[in-house]
Amino acid sequence: MSWSTRDTHFDKDLVTTNGNKYMIGNGYMGYRGTLEEFGKEQLVAVTLAGLYDKAGDKWREPVNAPNGLYTSIACDGEDLTVLDSEVASHVQELDIRSAVHCRETVYNLPEGGLLTFSAERFASLDNQHLLVSRLSIHSTRDCRIVIETGIDGKVWDINGPHLFELQEQLEKDVLITSAITGELKIPVVVAEQAVFSFGEQQIDEGKALRRISVEVRAGETYEWYKYVAVYTGLDALNAGDTPTPIEAAVHAVRSAQAQGYAVLLNNHRQLWEDRWSHSDVIIEGDEEAQFALRYSIYQLLIIAPAESEKVSIPARGLSGQVYKGAVFWDTEMFMLPFFLHSDPGIARNLMMYRIHTLDGARRKAAEYGFLGAFYAWESQDTGDDACTLFNVNDVFTGRPMRTFFRDKQVHISADVVHGIWQYVQFTGDDSLLLDGGAEVVWECARFFYSYAYYNSVKERYEILDVTGPDEYHERVNNNAFTNALVKETLEIAMRTAELLKEKYPEAYRDLSAQFSAGPYLAEFEAMLDSFYVPQPDPESLIIEQFDRYHKLEEVTLAELKSRVINKHEYWGGGNGLATTTTILKQADIVLMLNLFKHSFTKAVKKANWEFYEPRTEHGSSLSPCIYALVAADIGSPDWGYPYFMRTATVDLTGVSKQYVGDLYIGGTHPAANGGAWMAAVLGFAGLYFDGETVHIHPSLPKQWQSVELPVVLRGGSFRLHISRDEVTVSAAASNREDLAFTIQDGQPELCHPGAQLRLRLEAASV
Amino acid sequence: MSWSTRDTHFDKDLVTTNGNKYMIGNGYMGYRGTLEEFGKEQLVAVTLAGLYDKAGDKWREPVNAPNGLYTSIACDGEDLTVLDSEVASHVQELDIRSAVHCRETVYNLPEGGLLTFSAERFASLDNQHLLVSRLSIHSTRDCRIVIETGIDGKVWDINGPHLFELQEQLEKDVLITSAITGELKIPVVVAEQAVFSFGEQQIDEGKALRRISVEVRAGETYEWYKYVAVYTGLDALNAGDTPTPIEAAVHAVRSAQAQGYAVLLNNHRQLWEDRWSHSDVIIEGDEEAQFALRYSIYQLLIIAPAESEKVSIPARGLSGQVYKGAVFWDTEMFMLPFFLHSDPGIARNLMMYRIHTLDGARRKAAEYGFLGAFYAWESQDTGDDACTLFNVNDVFTGRPMRTFFRDKQVHISADVVHGIWQYVQFTGDDSLLLDGGAEVVWECARFFYSYAYYNSVKERYEILDVTGPDEYHERVNNNAFTNALVKETLEIAMRTAELLKEKYPEAYRDLSAQFSAGPYLAEFEAMLDSFYVPQPDPESLIIEQFDRYHKLEEVTLAELKSRVINKHEYWGGGNGLATTTTILKQADIVLMLNLFKHSFTKAVKKANWEFYEPRTEHGSSLSPCIYALVAADIGSPDWGYPYFMRTATVDLTGVSKQYVGDLYIGGTHPAANGGAWMAAVLGFAGLYFDGETVHIHPSLPKQWQSVELPVVLRGGSFRLHISRDEVTVSAAASNREDLAFTIQDGQPELCHPGAQLRLRLEAASV
Repeated sequence: MSWSTRDTHFDKDLVTTNGNKYMIGNGYMGYRGTLEEFGKEQLVAVTLAGLYDKAGDKWREPVNAPNGLYTSIACDGEDLTVLDSEVASHVQELDIRSAVHCRETVYNLPEGGLLTFSAERFASLDNQHLLVSRLSIHSTRDCRIVIETGIDGKVWDINGPHLFELQEQLEKDVLITSAITGELKIPVVVAEQAVFSFGEQQIDEGKALRRISVEVRAGETYEWYKYVAVYTGLDALNAGDTPTPIEAAVHAVRSAQAQGYAVLLNNHRQLWEDRWSHSDVIIEGDEEAQFALRYSIYQLLIIAPAESEKVSIPARGLSGQVYKGAVFWDTEMFMLPFFLHSDPGIARNLMMYRIHTLDGARRKAAEYGFLGAFYAWESQDTGDDACTLFNVNDVFTGRPMRTFFRDKQVHISADVVHGIWQYVQFTGDDSLLLDGGAEVVWECARFFYSYAYYNSVKERYEILDVTGPDEYHERVNNNAFTNALVKETLEIAMRTAELLKEKYPEAYRDLSAQFSAGPYLAEFEAMLDSFYVPQPDPESLIIEQFDRYHKLEEVTLAELKSRVINKHEYWGGGNGLATTTTILKQADIVLMLNLFKHSFTKAVKKANWEFYEPRTEHGSSLSPCIYALVAADIGSPDWGYPYFMRTATVDLTGVSKQYVGDLYIGGTHPAANGGAWMAAVLGFAGLYFDGETVHIHPSLPKQWQSVELPVVLRGGSFRLHISRDEVTVSAAASNREDLAFTIQDGQPELCHPGAQLRLRLEAASV
Repeated sequence: MSWSTRDTHFDKDLVTTNGNKYMIGNGYMGYRGTLEEFGKEQLVAVTLAGLYDKAGDKWREPVNAPNGLYTSIACDGEDLTVLDSEVASHVQELDIRSAVHCRETVYNLPEGGLLTFSAERFASLDNQHLLVSRLSIHSTRDCRIVIETGIDGKVWDINGPHLFELQEQLEKDVLITSAITGELKIPVVVAEQAVFSFGEQQIDEGKALRRISVEVRAGETYEWYKYVAVYTGLDALNAGDTPTPIEAAVHAVRSAQAQGYAVLLNNHRQLWEDRWSHSDVIIEGDEEAQFALRYSIYQLLIIAPAESEKVSIPARGLSGQVYKGAVFWDTEMFMLPFFLHSDPGIARNLMMYRIHTLDGARRKAAEYGFLGAFYAWESQDTGDDACTLFNVNDVFTGRPMRTFFRDKQVHISADVVHGIWQYVQFTGDDSLLLDGGAEVVWECARFFYSYAYYNSVKERYEILDVTGPDEYHERVNNNAFTNALVKETLEIAMRTAELLKEKYPEAYRDLSAQFSAGPYLAEFEAMLDSFYVPQPDPESLIIEQFDRYHKLEEVTLAELKSRVINKHEYWGGGNGLATTTTILKQADIVLMLNLFKHSFTKAVKKANWEFYEPRTEHGSSLSPCIYALVAADIGSPDWGYPYFMRTATVDLTGVSKQYVGDLYIGGTHPAANGGAWMAAVLGFAGLYFDGETVHIHPSLPKQWQSVELPVVLRGGSFRLHISRDEVTVSAAASNREDLAFTIQDGQPELCHPGAQLRLRLEAASV
């Protein structure tokens, strides 16, 4: 079974796509899958999690560090690079099992003979500050090779520059590039040690670049190593360390050198083995799906904030500065489920990030005249909203277009609450509530209480003037998805209070004191008593996406596409093509049906899937996985399979928009990666945990024999094997509690620590 | 003092403008100021009030009747027309005192000599079906003249054709053109009798055209007459007459012929004298303003529905089919005040039109899920809304643009209620309430009760998601103008109930029975108790036009204009240039300050005038008059004077948009005509009647010595003379009651029937 993806020739047109596809990372930094000799033009990026900077009046974005792995080769005075030289063969490969990137390029030398340049690299999982690389050259004839390697300070920025007072210096053998950011004056330091056992080395004063000259002899292999450390002022601040970032970086590369490449790689590999041991999903019978799903999980693992609760996962991961490096609802709704099932510690970090940014959400609510917390649509370090009111340019006039992402997508606050409650349900770890989670939940409920309006004739509270997941229809009333989530927020606010009152009465008293003047539980309860959530039509079973959706123009997707004048035109916004029609950008009602799958009958889910599917453009990479999930849920996994594959391969094929005008908007798609996992595990394997009982309702695509995966639920580890006729549950011996399992909604059975349950499925339902 | 306007040469480019400027009419029909030989290409139109037709899927519009005054002249086989012939001199003149249109054209004959063609016409005020004309020719040399005259059935339509089964026939000497409309199959009939005392007449079978050949002798004048009658199936329906429209039309022209031109003209003139006697406003010291104001009044008088309560005044009067011939809020807010002061019978008809269209308003409310009555933004015969959801085309894409005139300009229902209550206040005629007015008032209040939402945190009812008068800002919350008018609606609903309960308890019981299930008075009262109307900021005194208006981009009008890419681009709508800025289309807050002038201090009015005036584009002809009114109110009449003049001359200068693309949108501007009257009388002369006391607070522009006018208030007739130092009130001897007058907010003094009051003004305040 393959664990790697590779390209066997070089294609200039794929430089950007491969930058995403071959990415490595360790949650602290992402390193794009570019080649050693590449520079900013090829979108090399060492993107740092959680460090943002604002240049002038342009939007804030994450900071890219200088590239400590920069290396170029010249032979007999001629530069060798895949971009311009004659390449005899070229392989780029990513081993997703160990998160190691390799390239091997064989050049036809200008005056005959072949020179092979190989490089292997990884972003250490053992020490998140480290980038490590082994490189080599080998020639079929004698020649003079000059290797330039060091730290490339010419950083790719979308909205830069962000690094000021850039200094390049040498401390003993270590090259150091240091700078400070423009806005917050945070130091950014890269240190590099390169270890050569050949050639003559020269370092120009004030340049972070080594030049190694060597007379290479035919047939011999010349190998060297690079140890690169990245530190920022945020690390020192986080850890309360005494050393400066420079000292820390120098110390890190020296330690790395002392351990040596083999040891570092081995440690890194073991940690990756460990990661896969609690996250790998094995699909029997479908190799293509197997690799795509593993690759999706890989993409999530390389960007997961395993060691920080101050950052979350941006919408384009750590693949660059795209989308402002901002955290969207994607994290809670599309990525969190994977971590909840496989690595609750990371799930906790993701939710702690929302707790740490509560004040930003409070500021946003106050800015708009509301109570409580209105989370940022595009969240960065402080939780203040990075989203502008003019997020899209009109292609017909070139003018910025007023969009309502920032001020009307209120469901974000409900998504955060949903995530917090999911965490508590899945882990049983209610310390998150004590650590600020309860405050977030209540503040979000207060926000919605102040946002809601009561209609005296209909005698109900409504949520007016919002944009739901389907962003092509802005400023709608009673978006069913939003209303359902607001209701859930109010319910969670009540349950949180009950839970804390009962288990932690003193803490509850302290935490709730600030809300004594209300609105608080009494008001939430009153609102819940007469809160409107759109329901299925008794005849058609269709849930109307929002008030008067059914009055919009009915048009086919093909017809709408035929009206496009400019292929880059935005279908939403003020005059967008889709806005006056029933065509949706992405799953909206269907997403709600997935979130609250046990509140709706199969007939309702089926009717709405069939109604909304032909009306969905899937203009967001978040959409297809939801259709796959609900297709599985309604017993039609083969309807869902193409959507699953489209989702799982998005970063492998690179089939997604890369540019709008001259603005790069590509990058990886962590929400789709998480969506692929959800479709496979929560959809086809049919896993559903309600906080007490694990429900399994397999709905496997026809190619799939079985799905096998490890899960961690309420602190216990289980291994599940789900096939067409049987589900096997193996509980770890170290588990402390039993857990109940049920298949096909049958009688729950308890799985004791160390025990194995075998549950037979009735054929008809699979 | 001049009572006429004239052009002394012919200019092809002014054909369309002069069609408006030289219009005649009598409320039943409008006849555009075109020349006798003109056809549909020159936008000849005999526009019928209240008869609408829809062709195919195009929008409904009023029906133009065939032109019974069509006449052309040929001399020695050559057609003579101002459009193509050599014209020695040409005069077109409109006598607004008698509403008589004249033209005299002297042609240079091809082979020497001059031929003078004169024509005089009027739309009889004595018999609203009649058009009457006297024509003559005179030549300086002998020649052979052929006159073609009859009924031109080739009708100008914007969205036609509307006339089907067109038949041309002769009944004895009378030409008849009859047809039926496409949609409602309403007969439209034009009959014509031409009376010649010379020449030979020939009428081709099946053509409604006479050809008169005459050998003209030099120096002699040849005069003839035309009597034209227009009838439709609506007349028969209205009147319950037994004759057919054809019989009625034939009878009408025969009667007219029997009476003869001189008698008809005399009767017409006397009725016009009478009209002017109770509507003329005399300005001493400013001839230009005097004529412009009289001309404005003239425009109102020729379209006033004196004899029907089934029609109101469309936004472009009877000057064609523009704006669908639809009735907007213009009538209540800009035209009604003139009629309330001068001709309460017409004011009653205007309000009865709203009562007759209540069911259409109920249907519209129900269509949107509301209770009560939501009046049409563009109202035609049934009260169903003629306004589409896509009222403007995007110039950049050519696509229809979703606008929110129809569904969000809810203030229309409040405007109607305001009009009804104004009528009752001014006339004391509460029969209007018994005749359906009360039902309208209550249904509109019920509409707003169902439209309103209660915010539990702010503890108030709000009006969300509306478009106010400033249409550049659609879908705003708590538009101050709208909220103030909604509040007034609720108050009027309460007062109407009190009035009827007290005076007509039985009628009240019957009328209110249908509302017993509520919402009704109890709910209106509850809403009033906590209803939000934006108030002046305590510091700046500015009333925010709507929620978050102050957060919009502050930009000068000049700067905004510099951003225009296409001069026809619409500034409102989805992506309009003004939508994200503080630039307004037209008076909004300032209009509210005018409507509720006694609820705000002068300081508030001044602060808001000064704040909003530079932010107002005056993109509507309804805007400048309001700035004139409030300028006068705050004691700065000279700030207001240019706005007054711009308003009063709009149909004289023709300075307004005539075309959008190939769509004619010109026509007359009755709202501006009414606005000019308001600015002069309610603004500069400072007249304000609160239903009990007449307040006079003159604020005359520096050129003006005095304003003198007749008014009818609570059934009593008064003549007011308002100068800088004195106000004289003369009450008609026939008045039945005293009326109280006060100047400069002093002690009211009663003016007894037949008496004269002289009230001295303190100089300082003028």
